[in-house]
Amino acid sequence: MDKENNIPQLTTLCYIEHNGKYLMLHRVKKKNDINKDKYIGIGGHFEYGESPDECLIREVKEETGLTLTDYRSRGIITFVYGSDVVEYMHLYTATGYSGKMTECDEGELVWIDKTKVYDLDIWEGDKVFFRLLDKDSYFFSLKLVYDKDDRLTDVRLNGKEYGRDER
Amino acid sequence: MDKENNIPQLTTLCYIEHNGKYLMLHRVKKKNDINKDKYIGIGGHFEYGESPDECLIREVKEETGLTLTDYRSRGIITFVYGSDVVEYMHLYTATGYSGKMTECDEGELVWIDKTKVYDLDIWEGDKVFFRLLDKDSYFFSLKLVYDKDDRLTDVRLNGKEYGRDER
Repeated sequence: MDKENNIPQLTTLCYIEHNGKYLMLHRVKKKNDINKDKYIGIGGHFEYGESPDECLIREVKEETGLTLTDYRSRGIITFVYGSDVVEYMHLYTATGYSGKMTECDEGELVWIDKTKVYDLDIWEGDKVFFRLLDKDSYFFSLKLVYDKDDRLTDVRLNGKEYGRDER
Repeated sequence: MDKENNIPQLTTLCYIEHNGKYLMLHRVKKKNDINKDKYIGIGGHFEYGESPDECLIREVKEETGLTLTDYRSRGIITFVYGSDVVEYMHLYTATGYSGKMTECDEGELVWIDKTKVYDLDIWEGDKVFFRLLDKDSYFFSLKLVYDKDDRLTDVRLNGKEYGRDER
């Protein structure tokens, strides 16, 4: 992220599904990690010229060793953290893959029951999109605004305010 | 676009629908315009921190005077032009709006029958996504690669090659 020039980040984020579980990455290996100790999905930054799908397939291969064969674009998340981080996360779920899972140098790969992800140390806004994934909503645009203490201060769904009682 | 630093552009592109027609912008007013004389949809660049929807609503208001009340995210287009233009276009259609249409300083706003858009001076790849919009496909990811002479050299749909006979 280029803080001086306010350049937004472009990333993919994928939850691979199998037997009612999501494959999660427990980010315990990297230092100075905005996701330190949190559980997140698989993914990473776009390389120049990549489409979201090309980034997805490359990142999943790099982080898990798996080759995706069936995946679906579920939404885009505009992640705003403080005044100098803006990230557009292209959110996918995947149900088909081939190959053998390898170790990941960014964290530990663990299968977590879909109903249990809410109890993990995850970003508060991730619970919002997990519920949308559960509902099988049409492709959605979710804006999540955090302050510097990781507090979720604003949530918008498809351009409209998305109140706590609706989530 | 920052050619030196290879910074991708982020934009929205919207086709407002009414009575079987699309609202198109005939780009005849701007100089040094990559879209010079072509017909395109309404839209423009993200401002820092905007979600795709926020950009959409602002750009439609600025270019047409209209306030969108019903719109849908239809796809993302990875537009690659030569070696130094990469643009992620968030594609929308809209069926609801309020307000009175104003003039646009980037071109002339015209309503074009949906069946006639293929006959206009438009980007070759736009015909590909118009057909996908007609089919009412689920949200799609389309990569369109052009050379410097505006020739479409590669098309990928949802990460897979999308041959001429399939389009």
